[in-house]
Parts: sequence; structure tokens; C-alpha cells
Amino acid sequence: MAIAKDLRISLPVEGIPKKWYNLVADIGHLDPPLNPGTREPAKPEDFEPIFCKEIIRQEGCRERYVNIPGEVREGLVHLNRPQHLQRAVRLEKYLKTPAKIYFKREDMSPLGSHKGNTALAQAYFNAEEGIHTLTTETGAGQWGTALAMVSNLFDIDCTVFMVKGSYNQKPLRKTIMNTYGAKVYASPSPHTEFGKKVLKEHPETTGSLGIAISEACEMAAKDPNTCYSLGSVLNHVMLHQTVIGQETMEQMKIGEIDPDYMIACAGGGSNFGGFCFPMIGEKIKGKTDCEFIAAESNAAPSLTVGEFKYDFGDTAGYTPLLMMYTLGQEFIPKSVHAGGLRYHGMSPLVSAAMNKGLISARAYGQFETFEAGLAFARTEGIVPAPESCHAIKAAMDVALECKKAKKEKTIVFCLSGHGMLDLNGYEQYLDGTMKNSAAD
Amino acid sequence: MAIAKDLRISLPVEGIPKKWYNLVADIGHLDPPLNPGTREPAKPEDFEPIFCKEIIRQEGCRERYVNIPGEVREGLVHLNRPQHLQRAVRLEKYLKTPAKIYFKREDMSPLGSHKGNTALAQAYFNAEEGIHTLTTETGAGQWGTALAMVSNLFDIDCTVFMVKGSYNQKPLRKTIMNTYGAKVYASPSPHTEFGKKVLKEHPETTGSLGIAISEACEMAAKDPNTCYSLGSVLNHVMLHQTVIGQETMEQMKIGEIDPDYMIACAGGGSNFGGFCFPMIGEKIKGKTDCEFIAAESNAAPSLTVGEFKYDFGDTAGYTPLLMMYTLGQEFIPKSVHAGGLRYHGMSPLVSAAMNKGLISARAYGQFETFEAGLAFARTEGIVPAPESCHAIKAAMDVALECKKAKKEKTIVFCLSGHGMLDLNGYEQYLDGTMKNSAAD
Repeated sequence: MAIAKDLRISLPVEGIPKKWYNLVADIGHLDPPLNPGTREPAKPEDFEPIFCKEIIRQEGCRERYVNIPGEVREGLVHLNRPQHLQRAVRLEKYLKTPAKIYFKREDMSPLGSHKGNTALAQAYFNAEEGIHTLTTETGAGQWGTALAMVSNLFDIDCTVFMVKGSYNQKPLRKTIMNTYGAKVYASPSPHTEFGKKVLKEHPETTGSLGIAISEACEMAAKDPNTCYSLGSVLNHVMLHQTVIGQETMEQMKIGEIDPDYMIACAGGGSNFGGFCFPMIGEKIKGKTDCEFIAAESNAAPSLTVGEFKYDFGDTAGYTPLLMMYTLGQEFIPKSVHAGGLRYHGMSPLVSAAMNKGLISARAYGQFETFEAGLAFARTEGIVPAPESCHAIKAAMDVALECKKAKKEKTIVFCLSGHGMLDLNGYEQYLDGTMKNSAAD
Repeated sequence: MAIAKDLRISLPVEGIPKKWYNLVADIGHLDPPLNPGTREPAKPEDFEPIFCKEIIRQEGCRERYVNIPGEVREGLVHLNRPQHLQRAVRLEKYLKTPAKIYFKREDMSPLGSHKGNTALAQAYFNAEEGIHTLTTETGAGQWGTALAMVSNLFDIDCTVFMVKGSYNQKPLRKTIMNTYGAKVYASPSPHTEFGKKVLKEHPETTGSLGIAISEACEMAAKDPNTCYSLGSVLNHVMLHQTVIGQETMEQMKIGEIDPDYMIACAGGGSNFGGFCFPMIGEKIKGKTDCEFIAAESNAAPSLTVGEFKYDFGDTAGYTPLLMMYTLGQEFIPKSVHAGGLRYHGMSPLVSAAMNKGLISARAYGQFETFEAGLAFARTEGIVPAPESCHAIKAAMDVALECKKAKKEKTIVFCLSGHGMLDLNGYEQYLDGTMKNSAAD
């Protein structure tokens, strides 16, 4: 018995993309970020207190492709790229759907998620410019873990402001960042002026991503050899993550897979953007009819409930104003296990794609996504991250719609990470103490 | 800049071996297992209360190769086989060694360790014979997790007796087994006669692998449709694990890598056997001078301190007597994070290889192995399992010996698993509360 050819499609090491794809080149008009003081379009120098030059250049870049340096491609090997594209045959059987379901593996990185793809690029460019420390924020901990790990590859220090709620709930996330050598502070912290202010006004707060971003930016702005690194939202982050979608397109070509749906979870938008943007570029050119679905948490439903308007990326109002779907800079999402989806805004590029009707979005509750994750674990053998459970839930829903309509469609979704460090959520689901976040 | 060719050597899906390699065919005389009652060589029917027919056949098999069924090869795709062989360039630089260091990845299985390779084969053969439930024991939890996951692939139930100490210390290991749908009992448990007896005599005991094996065997023996599944020690387990070593040999051929040392950790011996046996077969034929080093825990130093003699595999004395290096059936190892290395005996095949001078062994303490694991995490980006840290420590020691002797040797070790579910150990190491197990 030969193994079915499309059960898994792999690429050799040389299949790691040589260029990043930039959707900015194809999407048409984009509203620029605004300087928070003047409310005029932000200039490159507005970003200089917190970002290194090459990152600022990429943030404003309009070229379709940006070269990936050899050192970054080699680093991507350490993240186990290229990652497999796999067919979920057993999930299809479980759903009794005529649809074919494929998924792109981002769970096989030693970090357990896709976050390393941009962390690596950011650490490299900062190290090249002589920056000795990167600061960042982390919610669930996946982003902080990624930056902590890749900082080692380029001999750079890493300081992580971790949302206090997560810091207390997920001590092992702190441990893994420490294992990789990073400093980890619970945010709000006494290490920044903004942190001190929040602690004074709300001593009992469990923090938020917005507050942690403010702290990390403040620390970066104070020291010329320290820069800030962001794990989602901005254009350069989306750019770096397109290795996911480019590999997937190459694998779909090899497997003769013509997707009707591409689905990914969306918090700040980096997994969704990285996975879908290269194919959205094809859609803009009229080369595919594929539908793109962003699966978000109903605890932070920026795309399905938020407004498309200028808003700050953080709580303090330190960042430029971004044109995006947002729930408001002061929105604090309910506590859900999918910490990576707890953000008030959405990547301006993903937001523009939504506003132009290129993509759609669905919001899901916590209970139903863990239910989907459990089905996936028991059929495909992988325990998915709570964030990824949202993409799985959407893929399962679409597959069941195909079943109802008796249509043999092809669904490709992104498994953004594994859930080995999120087993507490599964425990709550299994012992019956978890509620749907919308109903909390 | 092209990526160095030997940074990672991958195989396509069809590179999954088509046959298992059986060292029994090449090793010469092997002392047979003995019936615990008569002390005569055990007959196949002695194993029938607990094992299915094909497993018993494989246990006594003397053929050099055994075909791997197509369904099992397809299952191995779900375990992400073939796994990469990778060069630890950054670890080499850190050690300033002239030695080349390669490592075989078993951490990329969705289970986080190599244990699925045999779990899969055992679940398949049992399901084929109509067995509806598998029982087993687990210490650290890696083996139980593996059997829980693969049982789903073949629609079979799974009951795991988990050593009580681990059950209480590692609740998330229980959660992941439950997520995969397995029943998990703390051992000693009130579900077996032996468990009840131990609980009555030692109500405060934290259990041991030997006790948990006795419980799982007892439950299997009571029901004709229930069989027992063992994660290490026995010949058929070693057989199934040889996919590791066969892939590695193929990869070494592609990379023109001629190993001077092959190193793996050893508890019951399945990682070491699976990784080294195919190459030990070559050594017996005089085709290689490679040295093989088993890295064990000084908390259970069966190869370096134990005696080569007949002993029981479990505590109650239910199992056949095996000719092996052992610390005695009643030996209870100190509590160390490398739970997978806490076993009183050693695989009879590994023991025979040791007794014939084909391999050597080194024992390490807990602190020094976590120290090695941390260096590996910070250089290569992967947080290793505590068991794997023993192989890393041995590989680093050999690399430093090469440095002293100014010899450009080639070291290949097996990274048996990742440490995402063992971060408590890293926490203790980092906060300074961990002692070397020998010094406890």
C-alpha cells in the first residue's frame, strides 16, 4: 500500500522562499498611519525612536517583493521551515463531508507557532544595525517565546513585558522565555513610567496587550541601542509572515490543489495575513476565485463588530494612529485561552482587504472552538493551540456547509500552532467548567 | 548565500522505511525470557494473556527484517516521519570543538517524543486482531500520551496507569491523554488487585513504573479483548523503533556523514535501540568502527551500576524473567525530571549489546544534564526533554574530548523529544533549587 501522495506535501530546504511578498503593491489605496501628535501622515522619522532603519523602510515599502537575507533563510531552517502541507483525511471522514480539507503546519516550529517567522527577521535586521536589546510585549506568550528564542541566534538581548493576567496564569510561558535567556516582566510593571502610572491608578489590574505595548515602546524610546519589536499588526510583520502563504502556494501547485477557501485565525492578523496574502494577490489579479475567511474570537471581534477607523495600536496612545477595524484603544477583551486573539484592533492590511471585500470574517466562542480542537486532536493526532482552534472551527463549519450543499469543495486552513502549553484550556473544556466566551 | 547542505537532511514521505530491522538476527546468542513460575524458557503461549498474537510473534522473531504494514507507514506520516537529521553548527561553535555534531529529530512528532513509533505498530496489530482496549503504564507521561493518541487512529480504547508521583506533579500530562480520549488512573489504583494490595500496605506511596506495569498487565490478563502494551524494554518495541536508525543511516548516506560516535539516552532502551541498532548491525558485520554510547540517569544506572542477570520487568513479578542489566525488581529510583529514565532494568537486546562489548554507557546527574539542555536550547533553539538532555550532555562531553585531543570526529546523537511539558524542571534549574540527582 503506497501512502497517498497528497496526505503530506513537503518541500526541501531550498523551498524556503527567497523573497517576501508585499500585498501593499497590489491592494491599491491604503490610508497611511498618522503621527499621534500632529494627526498628519507619519514620516519615517516618527518611527525612529522605536524601530531600526530597515524595519521602518519595510513598513513603508511598496515593492511587490523584498529579498530575504541568507542569514534569515538559514534561521528559518532552525524554525523547521519549510513546513508541511497535510491533508486532514481523518477529519474529513469524521465530518462525513465531500469537501477536501488541507492544513498548513505551523505547529512544528520548536516554538510551537508561526511567530518565529517575523521574530527572526526583526532580530536579524536590528542586530545588523548594532541594536543590542529588543523589547516587546506578549499576551499568551507565543510571541515573547519566539522573540526570546531568535534573539539568541543573533546574539541580542530580549526584554518581554508579559500581560500580568497571563504571567500569573501561565508561569511556564515565563519559564520557556527564561530558558531562552530573555528577561520577563509582568505588565503593568514598575520598570516604566506608564507602567507605574497604571499600577498607581489600578493596582489590581491584570493588564492588557495595549498596556504592555506602551511599556515596551517606552523602554525602547529611552535608549538608542534598544528597539521595539512587534509580533503582529504592522505591514512589515505581515510581509515576513508571507513565507507561510508562499510555501503553501508552491505545495498546492505540486499537489494540484485548487483551493475554494483559505482560512486562518485572526487576532492582530499576522497568521491570517501571512497565510492568505500571497493568494489574495492572485485574487486581485483575477487568477483565483478562492474565498478567504478570518476566524476571530468573539471576545475581541474587531472584524465582525469593530469599526473601520483611525485608532491607536496601544492603550497609552504612544503609537501612530492606524486605519483599521477596531473596538477602541481602551477595549479590554474578556479573558480567553486564545490570548493571541485578544487585541482591540486588526492589521491595517487585513483591515483594508476586509474593507475592499476581498475577505470575510466569522467570530467564534471559546467553548465551540475547543470542541473543534478536541475533534481535531482525536482525528488528526495534533493538539492545536486555542487560537488555531478558531481556524479549525471555521474549516469544519465550511466543510459541513459543503456536506449540506453536496459540494466537493477544497478547504485549506492554517494550523497556527500547537497547544502543548495551553493544556489548561483543554482541562477546563474536559471537566465541564468552560463557558462560551460570548455567554460569560 | 546558499543554506549549507548538511544543516538539515530531510527525506520525502516515501523515505519512511518499508521494513523494521531486527538486531536479534545479527547479535548471536541471546538468553531467552523465562516463565516466572517454572523458570523454564517462556513459550509463546506464556505471553498470550497479555499480548496479541502478532506482537508475540515479533517478540520471538529471528528474521533480520519485518515488513511494515502500509497502514502503519501511513500512521507514521501522522507522527511527522521521516524526521530531519540536523547539524548543530551553533552548538559546535559554542563548544569551540573541531568535532561535527549532528542530531536526529524525534521532538517534531505531535507527541513530542519518539514513543509513537512503536505505539502505532502495537495499536495497529492489536486492532487487526479485534482487541478493543489497550492498557499500559506511564511514568513521565510520554509513553501514555503516545498510546492514547495512536489508539484513536485505529479506533481502540486506551487505559493508562500513571505513576502517582507523576500524576500529581504533572497534571497536564493527564490532560493531554484525556484530550486524546484515554482513561488515566493514578497508580497504585483501586482498579486492580495488586494496586489495592500496595495501597493497603503503603497508603502514602507515590508508586513506581514497576507497580504500574503490574496493574496494567493484571487488567489485560482479566479480559480476553484487552491487551497490554509496553513502551520499551522488549524486543518488538526495539524492532518498531528502528525506523529512527534506518532513516538516520539513509540521511548519513545522503550527507556523506561517517559517524565516529552515535549517542542516545537510555531508560528502558527504546530510544537508544531504535537509533543505534541498525548501525550496530553494520558494526557486527565489520562495516563501521562507530562507537555507541548509552547515556543514562545516575538515578537509575542499570548499565553502569546494575548486574547482568535474570530479573522481573515489573515489581509484582507478573512478567517473564528477562536477562538484563538490572538494579533489582524492587529498586525505586529517586524522583528526577527525566521520568522516562527511571527504570530498574534495561532492554535485553541493549543489555546483550553491552555485555558483548558492542556499546558503552555513561551515567549523568540531573543538574549537569539540564545545564547541557539549556546550552542546547540557547544555541539550537529547541528546548529538549529531560531524557534527551542526557544524550546532549554525553555528546557535548565527547565533543569536548575531541577538542582536547584536537580530533575532527563526527558525533550523531538522538534528540528523543522536546521539553514543552517538562518546563518545571527548567524552572527549578533556573531558580537554583535543582540538585544533581547523585548528590540528593
